[in-house]
Amino acid sequence: MKVVIVGGVAGGASTAARARRLSESAEIIMFERGPDVSFANCGLPYYIGGEIQEREKLLVTKPSLLNKRYRIDVRTRTEIVAIDRRAKQVRARNLGDGVEYLESYDFLVLAPGAAPWKPPIEGVDLPGVFTLRNLEDVDRIKDFVDRGVEHAVIVGAGFIGVELAENFLRRKLRTTIVELQDQVIPVVDREMTTPIAEALRSRGATLLLRESVEAMRKSADGLTLNLKSGRTLDAGLVVLGVGVRPENQLAVAAGLEIGPRGGIRVDDGMQTSDPSIYAVGDAVETRDFLTGGRTQVPLAGPANRQGRIAADNIFGRESRYRGTQSTAIVGFFDHTLATTGLTEKVLVRDRTPFFKVYVHANHHAGYYPGAKPLSIKLLADPLTGKVLGAQAVGSEGVANRINVLAAAIQAEMTIRDLAEVELAYAPQFGSAKDPVNMAGFVASNAADGLCPQVHVDQWEGELGKRAALIDVRTPQEFAAGAIPGAVNVPIDELRERLDEIPRDRPVVAYCQVGMRGYMAVLILRDAGLDAYNLGGGYKTYRLHHPASDEHA
Amino acid sequence: MKVVIVGGVAGGASTAARARRLSESAEIIMFERGPDVSFANCGLPYYIGGEIQEREKLLVTKPSLLNKRYRIDVRTRTEIVAIDRRAKQVRARNLGDGVEYLESYDFLVLAPGAAPWKPPIEGVDLPGVFTLRNLEDVDRIKDFVDRGVEHAVIVGAGFIGVELAENFLRRKLRTTIVELQDQVIPVVDREMTTPIAEALRSRGATLLLRESVEAMRKSADGLTLNLKSGRTLDAGLVVLGVGVRPENQLAVAAGLEIGPRGGIRVDDGMQTSDPSIYAVGDAVETRDFLTGGRTQVPLAGPANRQGRIAADNIFGRESRYRGTQSTAIVGFFDHTLATTGLTEKVLVRDRTPFFKVYVHANHHAGYYPGAKPLSIKLLADPLTGKVLGAQAVGSEGVANRINVLAAAIQAEMTIRDLAEVELAYAPQFGSAKDPVNMAGFVASNAADGLCPQVHVDQWEGELGKRAALIDVRTPQEFAAGAIPGAVNVPIDELRERLDEIPRDRPVVAYCQVGMRGYMAVLILRDAGLDAYNLGGGYKTYRLHHPASDEHA
Repeated sequence: MKVVIVGGVAGGASTAARARRLSESAEIIMFERGPDVSFANCGLPYYIGGEIQEREKLLVTKPSLLNKRYRIDVRTRTEIVAIDRRAKQVRARNLGDGVEYLESYDFLVLAPGAAPWKPPIEGVDLPGVFTLRNLEDVDRIKDFVDRGVEHAVIVGAGFIGVELAENFLRRKLRTTIVELQDQVIPVVDREMTTPIAEALRSRGATLLLRESVEAMRKSADGLTLNLKSGRTLDAGLVVLGVGVRPENQLAVAAGLEIGPRGGIRVDDGMQTSDPSIYAVGDAVETRDFLTGGRTQVPLAGPANRQGRIAADNIFGRESRYRGTQSTAIVGFFDHTLATTGLTEKVLVRDRTPFFKVYVHANHHAGYYPGAKPLSIKLLADPLTGKVLGAQAVGSEGVANRINVLAAAIQAEMTIRDLAEVELAYAPQFGSAKDPVNMAGFVASNAADGLCPQVHVDQWEGELGKRAALIDVRTPQEFAAGAIPGAVNVPIDELRERLDEIPRDRPVVAYCQVGMRGYMAVLILRDAGLDAYNLGGGYKTYRLHHPASDEHA
Repeated sequence: MKVVIVGGVAGGASTAARARRLSESAEIIMFERGPDVSFANCGLPYYIGGEIQEREKLLVTKPSLLNKRYRIDVRTRTEIVAIDRRAKQVRARNLGDGVEYLESYDFLVLAPGAAPWKPPIEGVDLPGVFTLRNLEDVDRIKDFVDRGVEHAVIVGAGFIGVELAENFLRRKLRTTIVELQDQVIPVVDREMTTPIAEALRSRGATLLLRESVEAMRKSADGLTLNLKSGRTLDAGLVVLGVGVRPENQLAVAAGLEIGPRGGIRVDDGMQTSDPSIYAVGDAVETRDFLTGGRTQVPLAGPANRQGRIAADNIFGRESRYRGTQSTAIVGFFDHTLATTGLTEKVLVRDRTPFFKVYVHANHHAGYYPGAKPLSIKLLADPLTGKVLGAQAVGSEGVANRINVLAAAIQAEMTIRDLAEVELAYAPQFGSAKDPVNMAGFVASNAADGLCPQVHVDQWEGELGKRAALIDVRTPQEFAAGAIPGAVNVPIDELRERLDEIPRDRPVVAYCQVGMRGYMAVLILRDAGLDAYNLGGGYKTYRLHHPASDEHA
C-alpha cells in the first residue's frame, strides 16, 4: 500500500501519523511545498509580538522526526504540479533544482490548505503588503517590524486581524484596522463583539468599520492607502487578513468535484469524487453539523480530525466526520470571545426559527476575589429546545463555558439539559449556578412562557413606540446610565407603586442583567399588566449601544 | 397556597425564590435555625485564610432582601421542632425567647442540610475542637487563629480538609492532616490525588495517612491528640472534617421514609413519602445518575437545582431531578483536582465492567508560553463506549475539561464522541487536539484493539513477573528516572534493534505519557511480538509511585 499526501501541516501530518499507526508496512510519502511541516499556524501572530520568543517553538514536528519515528518519507520544498488519476500518479517538482518526477499512489490525500485571499486592489503586491500563512510570511513581517515601522494597517478584523492587532500593539506600533463590516470578528453576532471592539480602542488601536482599502501606493516612507471613504492612511506595513481561499488548483485540474465556494467536495469519510483520492483540512468543503448544509471552515481542530478519519478509511476502518460546528475563540489581551454552532445572523439569513437569551454572570462565585464578568448569548430551537448556538465574551472562563456548550450542541442537548448540567463548583472555579445553568434557566423560563421577554432589537422596532419602559434598578444604578425614555421604579418598591405603571399599553421592564426584571414582570403580570422583560437587561442594551457610541 | 420551608441556605432559599416566581400570591414562610440565610458555605475556609476579607461577602442574600423582593417571610433563629402531618402544621420555636407556636402549611419543604459528623472520641467537645458548617463556626475558628495558635490539626483529608489546610498554611500555621484512608480526597481514585498530596507536603503540611485520632485531651497550651499509631500530637486547634450526616431528626420523628444512610427519601420530583412534604439538598437521598442507585452527595449545585424542582412540582409544573453525578472540584494553591461520574474504586466495588485510559497533556498549546501539565483519567463502558467517569488534576484548565466531561456523561456520550468534540482552540486557550479529544483518541484506540494496553496495577500483578519492560524514551529521560527493571530502547532506534527484544514473553513498552509507547507497540506487534503499551506511561507510573514515596 502506497499513500501519497500533498501538504504537511495540520491535516496532512495527522493523516501521515495515523496512517503509519494503522500500517507499519505502508509506504507513506508526504509532499510539502514549503520548507516546514506541521508548524503552529495559530501561533504565528504571537511570534511577531514576542509572546512566543523562539521561532523553533513554532515547529511542532520536524521532517526528521516524522521520518525516524513514523518512517514517513517527507519531501519539503516539493510541489505536486499535476495528478494523473488514470495512472494513479502525481507529478512532483523539486523547488530547489526544478527537477520533476512522477510518483505513483494507491491512495492520494490532498491537504493543501487554504491561501490568504489577496483582494484585487492596486498595490496588493507592493513590498510592505503582507498576508500571513506560514513561517516565511511571519519572518518577513517580523523583519519589517524589527526594522522600526511605526504604523501598521490590518485589513480585516477577523480572528487573525484581531490577533495581529494585539501583537502589533505589544510591539508599540500604531495600529489601524480597516474592516468592511460594521463590526469586528464578523462571523460572530455584532453585539457580542462590542467588548472586543472597545478593548481594541482602549488599547489604542484605530478601528475603521464599514471601510475598505481601494488602492495602495508607495510613498516616501512606506505606503499610502486610499480608503473607500476618501480618507487616506500612511502605513509602514499592511497585512491583509480578509479570508482564505481553498487551494483547489490541483483538484480542479484533475477534474475532482468542487463546491461552489471552491472547496474540494468530500463525503463524510473524506473521500473525494475519486475513490482513490481523499482530501482534508482547509481545502475541503464539509458538512455543517447543525444545518446539514455545505460549509468551509478553516480550523485546525477539524483538520486534524479529518486527517485521522481519512487514514482510517484508507486502511479499511470505517470512520465518519460528523461535520463542523464552527467552534472558535479569539483573545485580545485580557478579553476573550468564543463561539460555537450557529449565530443569530446565520439563523436569520436561513430563516431558521430560533429564540435567544442573554446571561451576564461572574466567571466564578462573586464572593470570591477575582470574579470577572462573562456574557453568554444562547440560541435555541423554539420547538425542541435544542441548543443551536452560543457565544461568550469576557476575560476569564470563556473557553470553559463555550466548550461545555460545544459538547452540548454535539450531543443535541436542550436548554433544559443545560439547566441541569452538573458542573464543577468551588468558589475559585465556578458557581453553584454556573453561567451555563443560568442560560438554561433563563431559556427554559422563556420557552415555558413563565417570563415573556423582548429583546433590544424588538424594543427598537414597533414595540418601543408603543410600550412603557420601566427601569427596576436602584436610583443609583439608574442615575449612572439608563435606556433613554425609561422611568425608574426600583423592584423593591414596585408592588407598592403599581399605580404608577401605565395599564393602557405594553410595559417593558429591565434591570442590570435580567434577574430583577424577571421578578418585576411576574409582579406586573400578576397585577394584570401586559409586561415583558428586556432580555439580558441593561448590560445587553450596552452591548448593542456601547457607551463610546463609536461602535454604532 | 401556603408553603413552609425548613432551612434557609442553598436548597431552602432556592425553593423560596422559585416558589415566589411561580406564584405572586402564595404565602411563603422560610424558617432558619441560624442567624443567616443563603450564606456561601463553600467560601468559609477562604474567609479563615483571608482570601475573602469581608465577612459580609459570605452573606449572599439577606433576609431583608428576600422579604422585600420576594415577599418571603424569613424567620431566622427559629427552629422547627415537630411536624404534625395529619394536621399539616409544624411547631416552631423562637430560639431567642423560647416561645413555641404552630404554623400550618399546604406544602412543607425540608431543607435542613447535613451536619458535620462528630466521631465518638474522647475530647470531641473540648474548646479548640471545631467542625465547620456555618458562619458561627467560622467566626470561632478564625478567632482562634487570630489569637495566635501555632499548630492546626485537620482530621479528614476530604475537600474541606484540603481547603482548610490551604488557608491555615496561608495564615502561617503549622498544619497537620490526619486521614484514615491511604490518600487525600478519598472520593477520588488514589493515584489522581498524588499531585495534591505532594503539593500539601511541599507547602509544609504534614500528612498522616492511614492514621486516626483516638482521644483528645486538654494540655498546657492547647490540646494533645493520641493517634491510633501510638503517636501523639500537640495542637492549638483541631477541625474535624470527617463527613456529614443528613439532618433527618424532624423527618424521622414525622415518620417519613428514610434511606439506609439517613437521607430523607424522595422521588425524582423531590417529594417525600408524604405527598405534602418535599425535601431538597444535603439532607436527601437522591438517585445516582449513572448507577441508578441511591446516593447522598452534599453539593451546592444539586441542592440549588433540587429547590427549583421542588417548587416547580408544588406549583403544578412537572419537573424531575435527573440524579446526581458527583461532579466536584478542589483547589490547593495552584493545584486543582476535579471529578465527575463514577470513580474506578466505585466501579470495582460494584463489579461494573469498565476500562480506563490516562492522558497527560498541556492545558493549552505547548508552543505558547505558560502551558501547564494536566492529567485526565477516563473511565468508560467496554461494551458501549459510554463515558462512566473522569478525573483531572493539574494547575490550569482542569475545570474546563471536567465540565466538558460532565456534560458528556449527562448526554451519554461515548469515547468516540469525545474524540470528535469540537472545542475552542487558540494557542492560549487549548490545543487543536484538546486533552479531551486525546482521551477520546486513546480510549477509542484501546477499545478498537488498535493498541493493547496494560496498566500500572496490572504490571504490578502477575504480568510484571512474566513480561519484559522496554522504556522507549531517550537515554536522557531514562537516566532521569525509570521503572525498575526496564531496558532502554529509544523509539527512534526500535526498528533497528528489534532483535534485542525478547520474543519468548509479553513485552510492555512505555514512554513518558503513552504516545511513543503506542507507536512502539505497533512496531513490536508488526514484528510478531506480544506487546502492550503501559497506559499513560511513566507519568501515570509516577502518580502511582510518587518520587517522594512517602505517599505509598
